[in-house]
Amino acid sequence: MQTIGYAAHQSNTPLKPYHFERRELRDEDVSIEILYCGVCHSDLHTANNDWGGTQYPIVPGHEIVGRVTDVGNNVSKYKVGDSVAVGCMVDSCLECDQCHLGEEQYCREGMVGTYSGKDRVTGESTKGGYSKHIVVREEFVLRVPENLDLAKCAPILCAGVTTYSPLRTWHVGPGSRVAVVGLGGLGHMAIKIAVAMGAHVTAISRSAEKEAEALEYGARHLLISKDQKAMAAHANQFDLIINTVPVKHDFTPYLPLLDIDGTQVLVGQVGEMAESNSVPLLLGRRRVAGSLIGGIKQTQEILDFCSLHNILPKVEVINMDEINDAFERLKEGDLSHRYVIDMSSLTI
Amino acid sequence: MQTIGYAAHQSNTPLKPYHFERRELRDEDVSIEILYCGVCHSDLHTANNDWGGTQYPIVPGHEIVGRVTDVGNNVSKYKVGDSVAVGCMVDSCLECDQCHLGEEQYCREGMVGTYSGKDRVTGESTKGGYSKHIVVREEFVLRVPENLDLAKCAPILCAGVTTYSPLRTWHVGPGSRVAVVGLGGLGHMAIKIAVAMGAHVTAISRSAEKEAEALEYGARHLLISKDQKAMAAHANQFDLIINTVPVKHDFTPYLPLLDIDGTQVLVGQVGEMAESNSVPLLLGRRRVAGSLIGGIKQTQEILDFCSLHNILPKVEVINMDEINDAFERLKEGDLSHRYVIDMSSLTI
Repeated sequence: MQTIGYAAHQSNTPLKPYHFERRELRDEDVSIEILYCGVCHSDLHTANNDWGGTQYPIVPGHEIVGRVTDVGNNVSKYKVGDSVAVGCMVDSCLECDQCHLGEEQYCREGMVGTYSGKDRVTGESTKGGYSKHIVVREEFVLRVPENLDLAKCAPILCAGVTTYSPLRTWHVGPGSRVAVVGLGGLGHMAIKIAVAMGAHVTAISRSAEKEAEALEYGARHLLISKDQKAMAAHANQFDLIINTVPVKHDFTPYLPLLDIDGTQVLVGQVGEMAESNSVPLLLGRRRVAGSLIGGIKQTQEILDFCSLHNILPKVEVINMDEINDAFERLKEGDLSHRYVIDMSSLTI
Repeated sequence: MQTIGYAAHQSNTPLKPYHFERRELRDEDVSIEILYCGVCHSDLHTANNDWGGTQYPIVPGHEIVGRVTDVGNNVSKYKVGDSVAVGCMVDSCLECDQCHLGEEQYCREGMVGTYSGKDRVTGESTKGGYSKHIVVREEFVLRVPENLDLAKCAPILCAGVTTYSPLRTWHVGPGSRVAVVGLGGLGHMAIKIAVAMGAHVTAISRSAEKEAEALEYGARHLLISKDQKAMAAHANQFDLIINTVPVKHDFTPYLPLLDIDGTQVLVGQVGEMAESNSVPLLLGRRRVAGSLIGGIKQTQEILDFCSLHNILPKVEVINMDEINDAFERLKEGDLSHRYVIDMSSLTI
């Protein structure tokens, strides 16, 4: 099927309209008309080849919401007209221990990313959601619960599950003491989800300006990371810290906030970290961990969880041709919402 | 009681004989004639005030083995003539959650270190095992199993429990896949203990020279950390890495060796760590943790475990007046054994 998207043709050049072919339906495939696609910081990193390995032309986008337009012969879960979604992955081996656990993001053969991944059948580079259509095998298609606003729910597919997954891995529930560093796309979702799980949530930010916002999301308190006295007063107070800072930094100043055996999970920065110090790790048997998106099972869970708890990301809907401006704003940092592209603004 | 020890009177000066007073027996105290004392890298760091806060004169030593010479009125566990030991701590509040868990090293009021700690009754600075006698409350005195060689077992009190504790925290048992980085005082004990727990142990070292030694301790294999091809071939192979490297370094190169959800535990370096990279943390939900010595319960456990499994540290027995040479050798690094001071070489 012929479709249109927005692609980067080399690093650090503007995205522009791009005509390309979506594969013919395989028996297990679902064909989707994309209605909305969230703009994730990873889209920008990949378009710019910040992490290496980008295959150009690259069509970014892995927070995809749309409607089923056709299904393959063996598809049983979805029918034409269903509201569906696609997240960060479109395939994996489905046979290894991790896939059996529903953790396809850690597939032993490597997951296939929604964009710049390698199609397991054809070997072609996958193309993402900044486009009118996508074809994805049934197992990697999510159901969008009826009451979720289709535009606003798109960021749940990445920002939502990326913060939900570590909250589940580290058993957050009623009474858990959780801190969230950063109040951007990931951070604000981490707060809302942890609050809905019953946790006592503290937001951590460099500036006091974010206080009203943090409280609006359900945090009990905003802790200013530059205020050393306040930081010291909160020593040993948290079971889990979700660190969403998306740039190179030192994770050490947050460690003393953790109680004994507590964990700080990095979900924002993918790459170099600054020098650190092992003392607060040793003195409280504390841990620093990483967590990568989440599996398909948890992606469906968080869509259903957001539906149940009326959680929606804070979004600003933009037209497709505003994407390069949105990327510029993303680069500047400190965005407290997620851009979502209204794909009806793109016509073939 | 008047006694004699070896003390540093300021940083980076040789230790020399030092006469001082041990406290009179309190009701819960055990008075011990010290027979042997291990030489730990922490002794050197504290004598040199590398970590700050050293109270001079400092008498180091927290791998203490001796014989009971007197007991206080309320002491029930020990009697005169018993072979006993003292490790890294001599007191804690005994009332907080951590003390109740037997994890006095994480006492909410702070444990009292065997040297350079603050006595909870008098406020005086505690003095360690480079001396003829010590007085310690019963709860912090360990029993030395009969069949353990008194000289050789001293390093179990710190090097032993420091590696035993994380092996327990991270549930190492038959079939666990454990790697140990470094083959010094801590590393060689980590290998021996993990092997006795039934784990499959791989030693990791910069140089192939250590192979025979590693295999002698029970490791199945020596992995050369500088051999990038060998390192890559061992990706995802381990559940736990015990990192005993005692200097500033980057822990990142060891992370890809861990399987999904695996943990690298830092037990050697207490202080600055080099720049790292979050990618292998995220891609396998891996963790970096710290672990500090071990509680009294686990210290007794590892003494009993070593007795049961005939595990003894590799030691070289020295006289008290050889301590400054031993410190020099320790500074040079790459020691594959532990020095133990024969305290009979010190006379009042």
